[in-house]
Formats: sequence, structure tokens, C-alpha cells
Amino acid sequence: MILDALRAELGEGRVCAAPDIEPRYFDDETGGVAGKPLGLVRPASTQEVSRVLSLCNAAGQPVVVQGGRTGLTRGAVPRDDELVLSLENFAAIEAVDAATGTMALGAGVALQAAQEAAAEAGWRLAVDIGARGSCTIGGMIATNAGGHQVFRHGMMRAQVLGLEAVLADGSVVSAMQPMLKNNTGYDWTQLMIGAEGTLGVVTRALLRLQPAVAGLETALCAVPDYAALVRLLALLRARLGPRLASFEAMWDDFLAQAIAHCALRAPFAQDWPCTVLVECEGEDDGALAAALEAAFEAGMLGDALIAQSGAARDGFWAYRDAIGEITRTMTHFEPFDVGAPTAVIGALVETVRAGLEAEFGALPCACFGHVADGNLHIALDLGAPGREHRAQAVVYDAVRAAGGTVSAEHGIGMLKRDWLGHTRSPAEIALMRRVRVALDPRGILNPGRIFDMETA
Amino acid sequence: MILDALRAELGEGRVCAAPDIEPRYFDDETGGVAGKPLGLVRPASTQEVSRVLSLCNAAGQPVVVQGGRTGLTRGAVPRDDELVLSLENFAAIEAVDAATGTMALGAGVALQAAQEAAAEAGWRLAVDIGARGSCTIGGMIATNAGGHQVFRHGMMRAQVLGLEAVLADGSVVSAMQPMLKNNTGYDWTQLMIGAEGTLGVVTRALLRLQPAVAGLETALCAVPDYAALVRLLALLRARLGPRLASFEAMWDDFLAQAIAHCALRAPFAQDWPCTVLVECEGEDDGALAAALEAAFEAGMLGDALIAQSGAARDGFWAYRDAIGEITRTMTHFEPFDVGAPTAVIGALVETVRAGLEAEFGALPCACFGHVADGNLHIALDLGAPGREHRAQAVVYDAVRAAGGTVSAEHGIGMLKRDWLGHTRSPAEIALMRRVRVALDPRGILNPGRIFDMETA
Ligand SMILES: Cc1cc2nc3c(=O)[nH]c(=O)nc-3n(C[C@H](O)[C@H](O)[C@H](O)COP(=O)(O)OP(=O)(O)OC[C@H]3O[C@@H](n4cnc5c(N)ncnc54)[C@H](O)[C@@H]3O)c2cc1C
Ligand SMILES: Cc1cc2nc3c(=O)[nH]c(=O)nc-3n(C[C@H](O)[C@H](O)[C@H](O)COP(=O)(O)OP(=O)(O)OC[C@H]3O[C@@H](n4cnc5c(N)ncnc54)[C@H](O)[C@@H]3O)c2cc1C
Repeated sequence: MILDALRAELGEGRVCAAPDIEPRYFDDETGGVAGKPLGLVRPASTQEVSRVLSLCNAAGQPVVVQGGRTGLTRGAVPRDDELVLSLENFAAIEAVDAATGTMALGAGVALQAAQEAAAEAGWRLAVDIGARGSCTIGGMIATNAGGHQVFRHGMMRAQVLGLEAVLADGSVVSAMQPMLKNNTGYDWTQLMIGAEGTLGVVTRALLRLQPAVAGLETALCAVPDYAALVRLLALLRARLGPRLASFEAMWDDFLAQAIAHCALRAPFAQDWPCTVLVECEGEDDGALAAALEAAFEAGMLGDALIAQSGAARDGFWAYRDAIGEITRTMTHFEPFDVGAPTAVIGALVETVRAGLEAEFGALPCACFGHVADGNLHIALDLGAPGREHRAQAVVYDAVRAAGGTVSAEHGIGMLKRDWLGHTRSPAEIALMRRVRVALDPRGILNPGRIFDMETA
Repeated sequence: MILDALRAELGEGRVCAAPDIEPRYFDDETGGVAGKPLGLVRPASTQEVSRVLSLCNAAGQPVVVQGGRTGLTRGAVPRDDELVLSLENFAAIEAVDAATGTMALGAGVALQAAQEAAAEAGWRLAVDIGARGSCTIGGMIATNAGGHQVFRHGMMRAQVLGLEAVLADGSVVSAMQPMLKNNTGYDWTQLMIGAEGTLGVVTRALLRLQPAVAGLETALCAVPDYAALVRLLALLRARLGPRLASFEAMWDDFLAQAIAHCALRAPFAQDWPCTVLVECEGEDDGALAAALEAAFEAGMLGDALIAQSGAARDGFWAYRDAIGEITRTMTHFEPFDVGAPTAVIGALVETVRAGLEAEFGALPCACFGHVADGNLHIALDLGAPGREHRAQAVVYDAVRAAGGTVSAEHGIGMLKRDWLGHTRSPAEIALMRRVRVALDPRGILNPGRIFDMETA
């Protein structure tokens, strides 16, 4: 039996049979019901991961890979008879090179620990997401995580200089070089990033660090309509260049709920269709104020406030951070993480709102997003269960018509599998399947995630 | 016969038999001898590329893909019996979105034409290489081209938002969305970038543009040793952040030859082991001068000059641009484009110099590079033919020992194929071969480039 073989190879302590698995290994952040896994294995070295996978591959034993289980698409949730492979023993920060700004670390390191180690060395790891305390570097690489700084620094993909991974058959591939340039054959590390654990298990990574930031100015901007917002973005990009660090849009429905649920004061004397939180990196030299002045004169702005203190800045972010409170008050919360070209996101919001209204009548809804990245989040209160699929059809059909994507940041996992074809063509999915079969012919790694290989 | 079938499908004008092929289709920039291709086909639409490849795939007809033929590794040079597939008819800039900064264009567009179209729309295409007049966007994507701005803006990979490509069997894959975030299954576009035409023919691309730059300050810095250079880079990154645009190192052998061959004046009162050309983006606010002042006080700088005029700036670049003249005067020029961690490039230069001296005695050699990217160029005058392999062994053995790469920017093609194993492990090469077989089972696309599939 596979668990016995694993115990013989790795020792008792690394392997755990189903009845003894602690509950935390059964779920990600979606809160659904898990299957009945066969067991849990927690290898502590790349060599051990390699042994686990070669045994499983030989036996045709399906494996589900787990990082911090903060995913939002059920990718890490075990199905029946799967072996849970946790990377939690890969939690070492191996080296921080303060001279050149790189960090080597295990896949199981939590984002926050990595951020702190970078800061201690005088640098900055330029990705940040709300789950920072528990999400792992390996999980972020597997999902190509996004977050608040993508427009400025790119997704997780852009932070990865090197990787080590174990393929389904147990072979170890390693490319942990810190150079920005390495054009020697296919860059397989790019293939692992965002593959959601279906092409290999990431064991170690070498990350690129960015210089620490000197200062930060924050503004809250009221825009008269979405067209003005797009023009404002172009103006800020032109005038602030790489200093433009955040451009977070909040629609009126979002702002109204933020104010109501968090007992905040309305920021402006009147209501505006859209409010944007803007941040500019670097010492305060008046560049942000001058840019906003110009935007105001060009009719792109209805009103604007610049934070004069840390407290004022926190006050601005309180609107954006109200999303937690907004969704908590929803009786049946359905989250959407979609993408579309920045220019059409305004129209997409209108279409989605109208479509949902036609389908369900008025429902509480809050629209917001990293629109500079082409990323729109919609928090929807369905009011009652059983409506998920119809709501998804409304949103994803509109996204498809807008030339957008059904998943901007969170990935496909098992939750969005049925909608992959809304963004990817049959030819693209066929290409993906060919790659999947080439690297994992027996389909043991995270089967049923992204697509269902059985129905190929 | 395949040429007849192609004529029947595409029309006479698109197809050309071997005797009628013009000489320019027989070479890239390496100046070697080409094979005898079967013919030339110049499709003018994605559908035509698809028809060409499905016919070739059915017939097992090998195809060599050509962009601007400015490559430096013989990837685009035809071998015997190959069909040359030129993308020259894909030369249209389809759309520039001035509101959000994106550009859709054909693979055959020359870099310079794309740069100019971006500038006309008030934006900037943030890649630049010396071959800009004739290299194509498709070729740059296929080779993941680098150049002068990688440290600041990334390689070609970072400029690509979307691609359209035709696979070996003629199937068309397209993902031309402008969003920065699209986590829906494997990002196959990343796989095409840098695959040197062995996984698919790139037909169209959607590129990300950057805001135009407000100003540029240029300095020439003399450093007392390589350790000081690394510290200087860290200091400039910390103080200038994203404004640091260039950091081009020239070793003493390079500067001496630049001065001698281009009749330039020595920039400093004494000779220094290394000279660095530094550029800082943005309006002149004294930040560069202050940073250099601090570097001087910390002992990282021996001397430094800041350009006070456009002419002075051109004067600084004249040293760096002397490379063309330096190599022209070499009797038997051998170019190296290697990479290594920035911290060890100084030691690598010493090792290579000593190794070459031991092997051949004193040879003219000029070391320079984008060291912030981990990229070192070595222009070597072998003096006589027949020494190439021994010189390559000296350089690439040292690169391997330094944990570096045998190709930083130019790719592998046919020229560096024998040295791939110096940078990539057998497990990595096996992975690449699996992907290659999955996407091109009959091996018709650019066979023999990167690796030799016949000897798998
Ligand atoms: C409060 C909160 C805020 C969030 N905000 C964002 C956000 O702003 N942007 C964003 O993109 N995402 C966000 N997320 C979701 C995000 O995808 C995850 O937080 C994170 O990327 C997953 O890391 P993890 O270690 O928890 O992975 P898990 O949940 O454990 O796994 C996620 C997927 O990756 C696979 N996997 C995990 N580790 C490995 C490995 N070492 N090798 C191979 N495969 C592996 C799993 O099998 C699974 O398919 C948020 C989640 C929460 C709970
Ligand atoms: C003066 C000079 C300076 C240079 N400077 C740099 C530099 O700084 N940095 C750098 O990285 N490189 C540099 N190069 C080399 C660089 O690789 C090429 O200039 C460029 O990227 C190749 O573009 P091309 O259109 O000429 O491609 P080609 O030479 O035609 O082809 C190159 C490879 O790509 C393949 N290919 C071409 N088009 C396609 C397509 N549409 N689809 C699929 N495959 C395709 C070919 O089969 C071949 O394998 C320089 C070259 C010269 C001559």
C-alpha cells in the first residue's frame, strides 16, 4: 500500500493516514466540503518530494499539493482518495543577498515572513495580498498571485528569478540563477508559474527584490464618469511614470456600502459615479498635487483630497479595506474576480448590473478593482442559495463579450473549471492539455484542477 | 510536391522555388554558410500560415522561420531541404491604443517602426537593440530579446501582453487580450517567448507601452574595483529606485580599445579598472548628483562626470558605442554573450582572462556588459581561425563554474547547441524535449535549433 511505501522511504513522522489528518488540511478559503483523502505526506527535502512523486507516479496515485490553503478556487482541497502533499516543511528563508537584492527560500515560506526578511535586509518584496500571513510563496507561484502592486511591479511571475520543482515522475528540475537574462532553451520556470500545481511541485524559489520606497503620497479622487477615469489614469501615468503605485477604483455602490457598513463619513460633498484611490511613490515634491490640478482643469476630476498625514492616508484606505465588512454582511456572498481591457470595464459594470437586475431584481452589489491592471472585482449578495450558476452566467457571458477573462488573479482550480472555455478557445485548451500530458502522462498531479483530463 | 501544393493553396506569388530565392534569405548576422533550402513561402495572413504548416506537417516537411534575420545564433539560417517561411508580409501596425498604452501589430513589423508608432501616440516601446532597423517583433519574441533597458523594463517577455501563433499542425492559438492579469490555465504565450520558433510561429502580438520619459541625466563613473561597482549599483538602486535606467560597465581593456580605435580622449585623469555609464530618468532635480556624491564619499567612486549637455551625453555614449569599431578591427572576432550573478562577474572576467592567456597567450579582448542584468559581453580577437572551440571551452567552463549562463540574450540557435548542457541540466533538457514533442511531434519547426531532437 502506498502509505506503507511512503513510511518506509520517508519515516513514520512524515506520513499520516486519513483518520489522523487534522481538519485544516481539508479546506481552502472557499469554505466548501472536501473529499476523503487517502493520507497526508509532509516531505522535508526536495529529495523526499522526488521519492514521494516517483512512488505515486508508479502507483498511479493522485496527489493534491498544498501550500497555505488560502486559495479561492478549491485547487488545494482534497478529493476522494487523493494523497495530500503539504509543503509546510519547506519554510526556510535560505539566503537574502543584500548586495544585489535577491532572496532564496523554500516554497512553504509565508509571504509575510518573506516580506519581513526582505525589509530587514533593506529591500522590498514587491507583491502583497490580504492573505499574507498564511499564503505561501509556492502557492503564490502556483497561482501567479496578483494583488495591489501589479500595475507597478507585475504579478508573482515578475518576482521569480529562479525555481526548483519536482515533476510528476519524481525528476528534479532546478534553475536557481539570479540573472535577469538567461536565454538557454525554453524557460520552463514560466510554465510552472500559474500552472496551479498540475505540472510540477514547486519546492524552492529565488525571488527578485526591489529597493525600499522613500515615501508615499495618497489621494482620493472623485471622477465624473468612467471615461474620465481612463483619461485620469493616462494623465497620471504620463506625469508620474513609475511613481504611480496604486490606482484602485471604487464604484458608487461600493462606496455607499463602505460608508454604511463601516460607519465612515462620505469623503466628498456630493456623490460621484466612481472614486479612485491613487498612490505615488517617492519624496513629496508636489508632483501628485500638480498632476491632480491638471486633471481637474481638464475635467477628469470632480473633486480630490491629498492625505496630509498617516492618519489621513489610513482614512482613505478605510474605504477600500471596507470590502471585508461589506462581504461579511452579505447573506449569500458570491465573489467575482474578472478581467477586461481597462477601457471597457466601465461598460462591463453597466452590463453586469443590468443583467443581474433582469435575472434577479435588485441585489446588493459592490464593484471595485485594480482597473489599471484590467481587473474588476464584483462582490454580489445573491440573497439565497441555488442562484450561483445563473449569476455566473450573467457575469461571465458579459466578460466574454467584452473580450475579458473569467479569472484575473485567483486561477481556475475546481471552482471555475466549467467557465474556462469562456476565456480560452478550444485550440488553447488543447495546447494546455498536450503540455499537461507531456509533463504528467498519468495525470497524478492535482487532477481535475484547471480542466478535467478524463473528458479530454 | 510540397511547393506545388503550397502554390495551389496560396497562389503563385507567395511561393518561390530554390533557384529563385534571393541571397538575403540565406543568412543571419553571423556570416556563415547556409544549406540548400527547398523553397521560400511568404504567407500574408494567419490563415495562410496555418495552411502552410498543416501541409508541411502532413508531409513531414521541415520549416525554418524567418523574421529580420538579425539573429546571432544561426537560428533563422536555412539548412538543406528546409522550407523558408518568412513573416515579412506581417508588417502592419494594426492599432495603437493611446488611452491605455497598448499596440497590436504583425510579427514582421521592424522594431524601429513599432518604436516610432508608439512615440507618435505619446508612448514608448521600452525595448531597444542595435538591430532596431531590421529585427522584427516576431523575431524578438522568439528570441526573448534583451538590450539596454532590461534592468528597468524587463526583456521582450515583459513587453508582451498577448500573442497569436500557429502551431506545427496548423492550429491557431490566439490570446490578444490587453489585461495584465489573466490567470486562466497555462500561459502558453510565455512558452512561445524565447522558444526560438521551435514551438510555434508567432504571427501577431499585443505589446505593452510605457509612458514617454520626461528627461534623462547621464554620468560616467570610474570605480576602483568590481566590489565597489556592486556597492555603487546597490546605492543607486536604493536612491534612484525606478529612475535608474542604464548601468553599463566597461572594463579597462574595453575603454583602452574604445579610445584607441575611435580616437577618443581618455575621460579621466588616470586609468581605472572599470568605468560605468549611468543614466537616470526624470527631470533634473539633482538626485543623480547627490547619489554620486554619496558614493564618492563611501569610496565606491574614484571619479565621475555628469553630462551638462546633449553633446556631452553623446560623448559618454561614444565610449560604449565604440564596440562596433572595436570588433571591426579584430582579425578573427569571437563574440560571447554570457551571464552570471552580478556579484561574481568581476571574478569571472579575471578567470576568463587568465584562462585565455594560458591557452593562447595575450589576445586582444574587450569586456563590457549590462552587469545589473547579470549579463557580460566579451569581444575576443582569436587572431586566427580554428581556435573557436578552445576559446568557447575556456569561457563556458568558467561561466558554468560561476553558476552562469552560456546565453544571456541571443539564444542557442544552432551556434551554441553544443554548450546548452553547460547551463541546463539533463532533467531540464529532458523537460524541454517533452514539451517540444508535445507541440511538434513530427519536429517540423526549426529542427536542430536549441537541441538536436534526432539524438534524443
Ligand atoms: C484574504 C485573502 C486575500 C487574497 N487576496 C488575493 C489577491 O489580492 N490576489 C491574488 O492573486 N490572490 C489572492 N488571494 C488568493 C491567492 O490565490 C492565495 O492567497 C495564494 O496565492 C495561494 O497561496 P497558498 O499557499 O495559500 O496556496 P494554496 O491555497 O495552498 O494552493 C493554491 C493552489 O496552488 C497549488 N500549490 C500550492 N503550493 C504549491 C507548490 N508548492 N507547488 C505546486 N503547486 C502548489 C495548490 O495545489 C492549489 O492548486 C487571497 C486569498 C485570501 C484568503
Ligand atoms: C547589431 C545587432 C545588435 C543586436 N543587439 C542585441 C541585443 O542587444 N540584445 C539581444 O537580445 N539581441 C541582440 N541582437 C540579436 C537579436 O536576437 C536579434 O536582433 C532579434 O531578436 C532577432 O530578430 P529577427 O527578426 O532578426 O529574427 P531572426 O534572426 O529572423 O530569427 C531569430 C530566431 O527567431 C525565429 N523567428 C523569427 N521570427 C519568428 C516568428 N515570427 N515566429 C517564430 N519564430 C521566429 C527564427 O527562426 C530564429 O530562430 C542583435 C543583433 C544585431 C545584428
